Order: sequence, then structure tokens, then C-alpha cells
Amino acid sequence: MKKPTFFLTQIAMALLFVPFVLGCNEKAEETTETASASTFNLTTAKAEIVDANKEFATLFAARDSVGLANLYSQDAKFMMNGSPAISGRNNIQSALSGIMNSGISRVDLITIDVWGSEGLVTEEGELSLFVGDQEVDKGKYIVLWKKEDGKWRLFRDIFNSNLSPK
Amino acid sequence: MKKPTFFLTQIAMALLFVPFVLGCNEKAEETTETASASTFNLTTAKAEIVDANKEFATLFAARDSVGLANLYSQDAKFMMNGSPAISGRNNIQSALSGIMNSGISRVDLITIDVWGSEGLVTEEGELSLFVGDQEVDKGKYIVLWKKEDGKWRLFRDIFNSNLSPK
Repeated sequence: MKKPTFFLTQIAMALLFVPFVLGCNEKAEETTETASASTFNLTTAKAEIVDANKEFATLFAARDSVGLANLYSQDAKFMMNGSPAISGRNNIQSALSGIMNSGISRVDLITIDVWGSEGLVTEEGELSLFVGDQEVDKGKYIVLWKKEDGKWRLFRDIFNSNLSPK
Repeated sequence: MKKPTFFLTQIAMALLFVPFVLGCNEKAEETTETASASTFNLTTAKAEIVDANKEFATLFAARDSVGLANLYSQDAKFMMNGSPAISGRNNIQSALSGIMNSGISRVDLITIDVWGSEGLVTEEGELSLFVGDQEVDKGKYIVLWKKEDGKWRLFRDIFNSNLSPK
């Protein structure tokens, strides 16, 4: 009767560890999920945002205010100096048309830094406004970018001028 | 000789599980760390930021530009209209003194929304500037708040006016 007891004790001992091992697997899965959520890469996001800014500049130069407005999220706010915040794509399109009609023909955007995580990234940058080849204004901006329909879109866009008011 | 073998086998079996159990503990610790990191609560952060804004308004009304500058992070940028970005506490203190000396005696700050996670929160808000009891300007702002020395501090502060330039 020694041998069966011996094996039963072994099995009982082994079973004692089952919850630990199962618990361990469960935790391992959780860890994997966490790792998957943190596959967000800020360097990649920054590159995508730099590309979105290039698209912005191209559409602006082409005077495509509809295309520009579509770079903004559905619930975006365009926060320019001299006006309360402008909400939604239609109103943002009008504001951008207004800027174009004032004579601004080109905007240069330079990303300085980005911070954030999956879903929302905040960008600091510098901008220059041109009439033809003439730089007429220089400024700074903060843009909150939101992932919408798989693309980073401007969600909050605030900027102002570096130049003293004339 | 059966008994010692029996116990040695038990010990050997137990040792077989040691890596799993240790591995499990390691993962459990990681999970705990992750859980600890995710104890970040945006509602709590928002309340802390609302409080920091109250402190800002109180120090402003008291014309305490040193106290105000200390609400900013060491590497902060103050991004006002009509000037390039102003970096660092000393320069920010001068800029705030300049605003006070222009006659502004009070600033009201209203938090509209916050986004972010542990370490960095972005706030959208509205501001009013007063000379005495007279509201002389209304505007909007985006502030990036950074946890430094256990306190939310202004890291990027950009704002502009809602009013048409005169």
C-alpha cells in the first residue's frame, strides 16, 4: 500500500500547485493584454502627425478648405486668436476659408514635441504664414490629436502669433 | 530506504514548481505595478487641476509673480500672443509681472475638459481678465500639466483672446 499512497501524495502535491500555475497563466494573459495595449508607440504617432501636418500644408496651399476641415475630428475646436472657439467641421471650414481669403496662401508647420498615449496625443509646434513667398506671421501652437476612423485628426487646435500686435 | 526517497521525490517535485511559482510571483508583481500605474484617476486629476487654477487666481490677485512662476514646471513654456514662447520660471515670472503691470488685476480660469494619463494631463479652459471689477478680455487656453515634485504644474500654457483685435 506504500506505492499508491506515494503517488496519491505526489498527485495531491501537484494539485496543490494547480491554482498557482493556473493563476500564473491567467496573470500571464493579463500581462499580454497590457503589453498589447502598450504597443502604442509615440515615435510612430509623431511620424504620423508630421505626415498629417504635411497633408494640412498641401491642402492649404491648394485652397481646399473642405479637405482641410476633414482633417479635423467631428467634435473638433479651432481656437484662433480674435474669435471664440469654433466648433465642428462646417464652421472650421468657414474659418479656414476666411484665412485663405485674407490672402494667406501657405502655412508651414513644424512639430517640436509630442506627448500622450493611445487615442490622444498633444503636439507643440511652430507655424509660419505666407502671402506668396513673403512670411507675414510666425507663431506657435498646441494641437490635440485624436484617433478617429484610424487616422490622427485635429481635435483641439490653438495657436497665436509671436509678433507684437501692430 | 523508501521513506527518504519518497521525501526527496516530493522535494524534487516541489522544486520543479519553484520556477513557476517564482515566475508567477514576478508576474504578479508586474501586474501589481501595472495596476498601481493605472490607479491614475482622471476625475481626481481634474479636481487637483481645478484647485491649482484656484491657487493661480489667488496668487495673481495677490500680485505674487514668484509664487505664480513656481506653479510652472522647471521646463515650462508660457505661450502668450504677441511674443515667442517664454521658457523657464524666471522668464515666466517677468512675463506675468508685465501682465500685472499692464493693469490686469484678476484672472478667472474655468476648466472645460481634461484628457491624459499619469504624468501628463491636457486641459482646455476659458479665461477672463479683469482691471478692477471690469472684464477687459475673454479668452481660451490649453494647458499641459505635468506632475513635478508630487504636484501638477503648468508645463505648456497657451492662450489667446476671443475678442477681435481693436
